[in-house]
Amino acid sequence: MLITMKEGEEVIKRGAMAVEGSAITYVGAVPSEEILSTYDEVVECEGRALMPGLINTHGHAAMSLLRGYADDLPLQTWLEEKMWPLEAKFTGRQVYAGTALSVIEMIKSGTTCFVDMYDHMDQVGQVVLESGMRARLCRGSIGLVSEAEQLEKLREAVQFARDWNRQADGRITTMLAPHAPYTCPPDYIRKFVDKAAELNLPLHTHLSETVREVEQNVADYGLRPVEHLRQLGFFDLPSLVAHAVHLTDEEIDVLADYDVKVAHNPGSNLKLGSGIAPVPKMLEKGMRPGLGTDGAASNNNLDMLEEVHLAAMIHKGINEDPVAVPALTALKMGTLYGAECVFLEQEIGSLEVGKKADFIIIDLSGPHMQPLHDVVSHMVYSASRNDILDVYIDGKPVMRNRELLTIDEEKVIFEANQAFQEIK
Amino acid sequence: MLITMKEGEEVIKRGAMAVEGSAITYVGAVPSEEILSTYDEVVECEGRALMPGLINTHGHAAMSLLRGYADDLPLQTWLEEKMWPLEAKFTGRQVYAGTALSVIEMIKSGTTCFVDMYDHMDQVGQVVLESGMRARLCRGSIGLVSEAEQLEKLREAVQFARDWNRQADGRITTMLAPHAPYTCPPDYIRKFVDKAAELNLPLHTHLSETVREVEQNVADYGLRPVEHLRQLGFFDLPSLVAHAVHLTDEEIDVLADYDVKVAHNPGSNLKLGSGIAPVPKMLEKGMRPGLGTDGAASNNNLDMLEEVHLAAMIHKGINEDPVAVPALTALKMGTLYGAECVFLEQEIGSLEVGKKADFIIIDLSGPHMQPLHDVVSHMVYSASRNDILDVYIDGKPVMRNRELLTIDEEKVIFEANQAFQEIK
Repeated sequence: MLITMKEGEEVIKRGAMAVEGSAITYVGAVPSEEILSTYDEVVECEGRALMPGLINTHGHAAMSLLRGYADDLPLQTWLEEKMWPLEAKFTGRQVYAGTALSVIEMIKSGTTCFVDMYDHMDQVGQVVLESGMRARLCRGSIGLVSEAEQLEKLREAVQFARDWNRQADGRITTMLAPHAPYTCPPDYIRKFVDKAAELNLPLHTHLSETVREVEQNVADYGLRPVEHLRQLGFFDLPSLVAHAVHLTDEEIDVLADYDVKVAHNPGSNLKLGSGIAPVPKMLEKGMRPGLGTDGAASNNNLDMLEEVHLAAMIHKGINEDPVAVPALTALKMGTLYGAECVFLEQEIGSLEVGKKADFIIIDLSGPHMQPLHDVVSHMVYSASRNDILDVYIDGKPVMRNRELLTIDEEKVIFEANQAFQEIK
Repeated sequence: MLITMKEGEEVIKRGAMAVEGSAITYVGAVPSEEILSTYDEVVECEGRALMPGLINTHGHAAMSLLRGYADDLPLQTWLEEKMWPLEAKFTGRQVYAGTALSVIEMIKSGTTCFVDMYDHMDQVGQVVLESGMRARLCRGSIGLVSEAEQLEKLREAVQFARDWNRQADGRITTMLAPHAPYTCPPDYIRKFVDKAAELNLPLHTHLSETVREVEQNVADYGLRPVEHLRQLGFFDLPSLVAHAVHLTDEEIDVLADYDVKVAHNPGSNLKLGSGIAPVPKMLEKGMRPGLGTDGAASNNNLDMLEEVHLAAMIHKGINEDPVAVPALTALKMGTLYGAECVFLEQEIGSLEVGKKADFIIIDLSGPHMQPLHDVVSHMVYSASRNDILDVYIDGKPVMRNRELLTIDEEKVIFEANQAFQEIK
């Protein structure tokens, strides 16, 4: 069974897909034995489904080292007393170890492409290169520092974005990312906008995650964050904003008008008590938000199927509307819309000829998948990460029968624990 | 590692538990080799955690046959055009097959005791008897029928409750259950109350799941459902109500005063667009709600860890309060509070000497469980059903290393699909 996510042909009940090199070269009816015999390898998928890999549109992979280190605290206490003091001790070693731990978890839960905004990004690039993953990476810069430090961070961000864009057989692409309007002065944000225009790269930032930061923006600049970024020219370039929880209807209109991409992070927004983004309204306006896990310290896992599930469930609940965010829409948010959010919709996000072979194979035999009335419904409402058996990225298997093929799982777990011990 | 759920001693980092027959006979520090050698079997749990089995306090197990059969529809369309016409065709055969499918799914996701409210309950009792499960069962009676039919349903409910209470080595207990105030006339509900008093059995019903049924109750009887049931004497007996989504503060006070048990069903309430129960307020008033999945047709799975996760997440999100329903509280809702909700807290719900040996063994080695800062946090926010390796009920293993020991999984799945084909 193929869950293609191609518009209008989302499910092919009995079908086949061919891969040559890194690309999908056929999607359709099962071909004859004669044609099948011309392929090097034929993988029988009876009782299984193929679908595009999940795309995690916002996160901070290295923060998995701090998973569960501090929970259930008010946001400022959590950040200022728990997260920041430990993150300040992170060196490249912690970032490499934490990112590798996250990449393992992501592959094992079916993610084939992720966005990462962090520091020591060369280490992140290295993990992506070695693991066979696909990623859209950016050095996140907090501008609440001296001008010299600001400029050094900007230089690093630009250097990283230049050095790594289209590396690893094109699996790595980059962005520029001022951290957020509340952590970056306007002129600093403008410098990122100018550099992004010069380098022809997208922009990424945090937007209106909490009520407090919106109020702060109004107090500091007399503007809500959307208008603030609009005036800085942020939305004139391809841009991806994370969270977008606290928006007025007019702000949604602006984001829709400028075709701003939104990474909806339902798990993190719930857990940190940030609120719930107005996704049904975004969809009404024709926006196509993607999904993200955010960092593991605020989630506390990197399971994109869980985000798909939450996206399909919570908007129904709070709006008391059982038809809000239908299952198929939620699954597209995790795949096709995610590809659009990372500006790679020509390459990934659906099973279509000419796209990269980034796909996952799902076991449909578990008791929770019976009877198999509707495979899309089951993927969204019933499946769990462990139903994912195989993961392919860029045409290459990175997991088969739940065994990782490009990374030594035991070694990565050992090193991640060691890297945390060094800083705690 | 032991997650005992015993008040004040919830986690024992390095400990041991002994089981003799069906009972827990020791919980504490690891005893000497000499003492260990007196036991028939010693199970080494390095890198694993033991915790009480999860308790599913509300559901309709046989409805798993309709999982995903119809989703994302307005509630009345879903019920009247999809669920009821098919459910009307259910015979004992469908109920046996659907319940067996659900019991497999429940065991594989760590549930060791479940509440079931359905029809053809002898078949449900049979599945529980054969599978080694523990359950609190009741025949749910809809009273929108002739008086003769009402009385026949009541007779069946009483007969079942008498015949099966304390059967299967005491693993089966029973209740009486008028379906809901909006489906049972007041005098019919009163008959259940009288019978429950006579038989010394608890009562179970649906309460204030949707705004519509609350408004209906006010229109029909001039009272909101809580006061309506209170006046009918429902709360004078031990009673468990499912959902309790739409409550005023005064209604929460009444439920707390009468020590009414609440089954909170976050997944079902979200998916059907019913709303979100005021759990933080219930906890403030000293209530200890349990968790339930509801039927698989409205969830769409029976994964209690997911309900624990949702309970810990959604109340933080909608209240914009990151300390609402902390992880430990959510895990207690799934275990200890659940035991209280099914009036079996003397027997199950925590790992304590004298209680029944209903427990699960969890693998802590996955990437999503690293670093192991806080095992309770990880169980609530990071774990998934597949981390559960072994399940014991009444001292007997029913799953080991994810292999079911009391049920033929393949046969049950085959028969469930067949039973659905017969009625579709």
